[in-house]
Amino acid sequence: MKAVIKENLKPGICIRELDPPAAQKDPIVRIEAAALCGSDLHMFEDMSSYQFAVTPVIMGHEACGVIEYSGDSGLMAGQRVVIDSVLSCGECFYCRTGRENLCVNRKTVGQQIDGVFARYARLPKRVLIPVPNHLPAEQGACLEPFGVALRCIEQAGICPGDTVAIIGPGPIGLMAMLLARHSGAATVIMVGTPADEMRLNLARQLGADAVICSPEELKQHRNQYSVVLEWSGSQGGFLSACELVAAGGTIVVGAIYSREAHVDMNTLVRREITLKTARSRTYSTWKRAIDLVCKQVVDLGPIVTHRYPVEAAQEAFEQALARKSIKTVLTF
Amino acid sequence: MKAVIKENLKPGICIRELDPPAAQKDPIVRIEAAALCGSDLHMFEDMSSYQFAVTPVIMGHEACGVIEYSGDSGLMAGQRVVIDSVLSCGECFYCRTGRENLCVNRKTVGQQIDGVFARYARLPKRVLIPVPNHLPAEQGACLEPFGVALRCIEQAGICPGDTVAIIGPGPIGLMAMLLARHSGAATVIMVGTPADEMRLNLARQLGADAVICSPEELKQHRNQYSVVLEWSGSQGGFLSACELVAAGGTIVVGAIYSREAHVDMNTLVRREITLKTARSRTYSTWKRAIDLVCKQVVDLGPIVTHRYPVEAAQEAFEQALARKSIKTVLTF
Amino acid sequence: MKAVIKENLKPGICIRELDPPAAQKDPIVRIEAAALCGSDLHMFEDMSSYQFAVTPVIMGHEACGVIEYSGDSGLMAGQRVVIDSVLSCGECFYCRTGRENLCVNRKTVGQQIDGVFARYARLPKRVLIPVPNHLPAEQGACLEPFGVALRCIEQAGICPGDTVAIIGPGPIGLMAMLLARHSGAATVIMVGTPADEMRLNLARQLGADAVICSPEELKQHRNQYSVVLEWSGSQGGFLSACELVAAGGTIVVGAIYSREAHVDMNTLVRREITLKTARSRTYSTWKRAIDLVCKQVVDLGPIVTHRYPVEAAQEAFEQALARKSIKTVLTF
Amino acid sequence: MKAVIKENLKPGICIRELDPPAAQKDPIVRIEAAALCGSDLHMFEDMSSYQFAVTPVIMGHEACGVIEYSGDSGLMAGQRVVIDSVLSCGECFYCRTGRENLCVNRKTVGQQIDGVFARYARLPKRVLIPVPNHLPAEQGACLEPFGVALRCIEQAGICPGDTVAIIGPGPIGLMAMLLARHSGAATVIMVGTPADEMRLNLARQLGADAVICSPEELKQHRNQYSVVLEWSGSQGGFLSACELVAAGGTIVVGAIYSREAHVDMNTLVRREITLKTARSRTYSTWKRAIDLVCKQVVDLGPIVTHRYPVEAAQEAFEQALARKSIKTVLTF
Repeated sequence: MKAVIKENLKPGICIRELDPPAAQKDPIVRIEAAALCGSDLHMFEDMSSYQFAVTPVIMGHEACGVIEYSGDSGLMAGQRVVIDSVLSCGECFYCRTGRENLCVNRKTVGQQIDGVFARYARLPKRVLIPVPNHLPAEQGACLEPFGVALRCIEQAGICPGDTVAIIGPGPIGLMAMLLARHSGAATVIMVGTPADEMRLNLARQLGADAVICSPEELKQHRNQYSVVLEWSGSQGGFLSACELVAAGGTIVVGAIYSREAHVDMNTLVRREITLKTARSRTYSTWKRAIDLVCKQVVDLGPIVTHRYPVEAAQEAFEQALARKSIKTVLTF
Repeated sequence: MKAVIKENLKPGICIRELDPPAAQKDPIVRIEAAALCGSDLHMFEDMSSYQFAVTPVIMGHEACGVIEYSGDSGLMAGQRVVIDSVLSCGECFYCRTGRENLCVNRKTVGQQIDGVFARYARLPKRVLIPVPNHLPAEQGACLEPFGVALRCIEQAGICPGDTVAIIGPGPIGLMAMLLARHSGAATVIMVGTPADEMRLNLARQLGADAVICSPEELKQHRNQYSVVLEWSGSQGGFLSACELVAAGGTIVVGAIYSREAHVDMNTLVRREITLKTARSRTYSTWKRAIDLVCKQVVDLGPIVTHRYPVEAAQEAFEQALARKSIKTVLTF
Repeated sequence: MKAVIKENLKPGICIRELDPPAAQKDPIVRIEAAALCGSDLHMFEDMSSYQFAVTPVIMGHEACGVIEYSGDSGLMAGQRVVIDSVLSCGECFYCRTGRENLCVNRKTVGQQIDGVFARYARLPKRVLIPVPNHLPAEQGACLEPFGVALRCIEQAGICPGDTVAIIGPGPIGLMAMLLARHSGAATVIMVGTPADEMRLNLARQLGADAVICSPEELKQHRNQYSVVLEWSGSQGGFLSACELVAAGGTIVVGAIYSREAHVDMNTLVRREITLKTARSRTYSTWKRAIDLVCKQVVDLGPIVTHRYPVEAAQEAFEQALARKSIKTVLTF
Repeated sequence: MKAVIKENLKPGICIRELDPPAAQKDPIVRIEAAALCGSDLHMFEDMSSYQFAVTPVIMGHEACGVIEYSGDSGLMAGQRVVIDSVLSCGECFYCRTGRENLCVNRKTVGQQIDGVFARYARLPKRVLIPVPNHLPAEQGACLEPFGVALRCIEQAGICPGDTVAIIGPGPIGLMAMLLARHSGAATVIMVGTPADEMRLNLARQLGADAVICSPEELKQHRNQYSVVLEWSGSQGGFLSACELVAAGGTIVVGAIYSREAHVDMNTLVRREITLKTARSRTYSTWKRAIDLVCKQVVDLGPIVTHRYPVEAAQEAFEQALARKSIKTVLTF
């Protein structure tokens, strides 16, 4: 089988022919669709912030597939599953208190253990989340990042009538926007940069009341949003969040930053702003995410703009890095 | 002008010709549309639980109109306003802490002070809530009960992916259902009785995943709803709430009960259920309610099923008491 | 070894000589101190509400001991542990989301599996909670009910300056009172009945600002408490809770009721009261409970009023049922 | 009467002889004790961040006194009152929703309107908070900053068993420490710098489990505090907060910063830290603060270390700026 592999801490990826994994204790999933995450792109480009990856490793952690071999999982062969990117230990204080996303022994699929960019993946049963068999594989592959967006919404605690700004129209930002819309926000805006044109257009189609990509427009929206969701991961994005948020409001940061951000703490303190953060997702988030997509409350279809067979993974990565795609799915 | 008046503590209403109110300190509103509330019906039928009403009194507290005479309000003549049913004092501990709905000196418009069932109403500026002039008067008249439904949703703290059951398909229950749908609930069901057929049909049209009106159906939904909103005000409705709510879930009671309800406290304690309550609405609820309707996130149009000129108020009350209408609007 | 055994569904207990448990997979604890819980007394008196107990069974679920045989626990022999009364499954939705107290497969130690009223107890490692070796065994034995009291306080969300009433001066009520005092309550009162004289005296010694046991006194405190903790489990206690709580306040019910309670729902709704409930405790509660006692923030010593060797368990039960003791500890 | 006056935007203060204020609409308070706030010191030293002050102005906003002339206040002459430093408008969205601390029209006593560093102060009734006449004037003068500390605790939401670190042992930091202790924290530590020796000693006397003033000690406490309260207002203090807070924990920032703070946002996001802020206090905070001090739950006595007659105000300021005092009170 063909697999996308990170061989060492240098830029780039390899596509290699591997033997399918042998049947052992852990179940084996036949991957139907797997999606590229921003962290996959970071690993492609520059490993400096991914030194914790254990190479060589099969990449990928967003996927949907069916149980090929049940191993010790108790799941039936043929059961459709999606993959949790976080292998938590189940024993530490955080796991025991429902915050598996903070597990002190956590391993990331596709970074510290072999991932899903291959036809077959042998994975610990703990990362296999059963889903209804009618769920399209492509939407299933998007459930992991959708859960990340949902965790951010859980932290935001949006109440109908809130005004919500989202900064950063990447796939998770767009999913967060869909969720803000479905949380009863009276107004939802998306903030990006001129380079985000394609993504901002999609934001508009998906129901943003306004899209903003200039400092002048930003100024007109100052101090008006009770909730701001920061998904840009840039200093500029964080400053925009501080500018948009209303006194007494909440900023939720879900993005990982490439460098230190500066903050004028007084602008937060003087207006009693709350800054929350969101990290991957909890077990209860999974249940919500699956229900929302399977019951067709939220349609993730429009987020997936490109599809490639695994053999063309190099091109898939390059298009994504060039921001020509939004969400890219690999098939096997 | 014609006005609907409660003259004494006996059943029934009077429609009387009155002089319009004279210009004094308080502003005067020309009422464009006023809606019948359940409490108006209770006052019509049986005053036993409304002994606190000060008769004779012009009834009505759900209304939209325009400022005819600005008095001390600082509002411009011609400004469209809706009416807050609660005249709070602005001085007590609850008013000072943002919970005007619990004001210890509260008076209800149309019960302790003259209300809105007349062409002109002189009202304290504190109960006049400015709204955009483009808001249709009929939807404006529904903002007061919509705010009550929204207060219940604020208390519920729904997160996308929750499963929500609403009990009692009256106007507020239906509005709460719309809001639950707009809060990202994965599943929304409405529970009623066979006598609610017309209302359950509307619930279905407005997006309920299921409507339930028999004990057998109820049994199939046991223990499945993370949030239950109780708007029936009946012992049976409360028992249904206890049956539907999942362990760890939340029941919000907004209804006023006609008699004492019994509760098996152990069913709440053993499953660590939270029971919250919702009373009228706070000032911040008003802002949310207005934004949601004026920005057309929520459409209250379908809730209004009947319209009558004030002269036909007697018929309007009778149809409503016979459950032949859902929300009834009077015009002047 | 001597063990206190419930042999069948009739009133009473047996004290029997048993062989110590054999070394198998599960670890064995040498019990140093075990405490009588209200539910043990209920099992003694009347099993009607404990039909789910699996007899014959060694009773008892509040205990402190040391690891005698480590089995599969990974704990060192000699490690001091306390016992979690709830054996949760670790797999269900509630366990995975940090609410083990709602585990759908939960078993109670001393009811569905053999308990701690014996010199040696073989117990699943999941119910063994390590504690510092310096913790006195008697206080260790009280950690389980203390955790229950703490769960109630977690649900209450007391903020310094709150006014707190506790109803029901049993051991957990008294512990909740200590915790309310340690939560910065400005005022703390304890409510009981004339039969509670001994317990109310202890409440006074432990810092209650007032103790109340007559309807006249109650009336003077109406509507004054932002938080009320209901630990009486009686209809009268619940009514007192509704009377004492201030508008906008919170009642937390932790007690199990012997019969259905009636509630005038309108008194809750009209004043927007929140009613929360508390069930056993979560894993995170354990950590807090251990820290509070081991760091001597809270002293549980005065709650323990009687001690008996296991051979005198019959007398221990009888004294407790006669309300002559507050917390009773058995030694082995 | 002698008054402490800020005459212009240059460093320093003046002590001037003024006529007592004439009796008009606003009530007049005879000031018994007034305390120096950090912001008074900033105004003394450097007005760059206080350009919004309207000079000349009588300084001071922390005070206790008695009503000398009741004006329109409805208060009786002789009633003891404390002063709210914030004159809020009572009309804006924030005032109407219980968050007067965010009033968009707020004026600060002693900065935009004449303050309390004089024998008599004429003040709007809205800033006069009645307190029991038995409250010692000196403790009364400390209620305003104590309310600020309490607002920070309200935001923190401490639950018994939490571990709490306070950074910055100034008067408010010390008060926050007392409150953390009274919130049932299992562990409370205070973090300062070597220059804080006197204050750290007081922290130790007031019950800190440890005081820390070196990077080495800090390292030993890394990642251990569920709640961190930041009252230093320095970049270093904020970095310490990030270091001390445990994954999933909460930082509350109450300090005003003299310059921009840098934050490695990833350390917050990767560990899902919540950063809250606290600004002055709300109306409900006042009630709590008064109750806690008047019912002697919290003793503010030890915080007041120096007392001066108004004539010696220059020396009072200089000693405070040299960190030789903790809380300084002026008498008149």
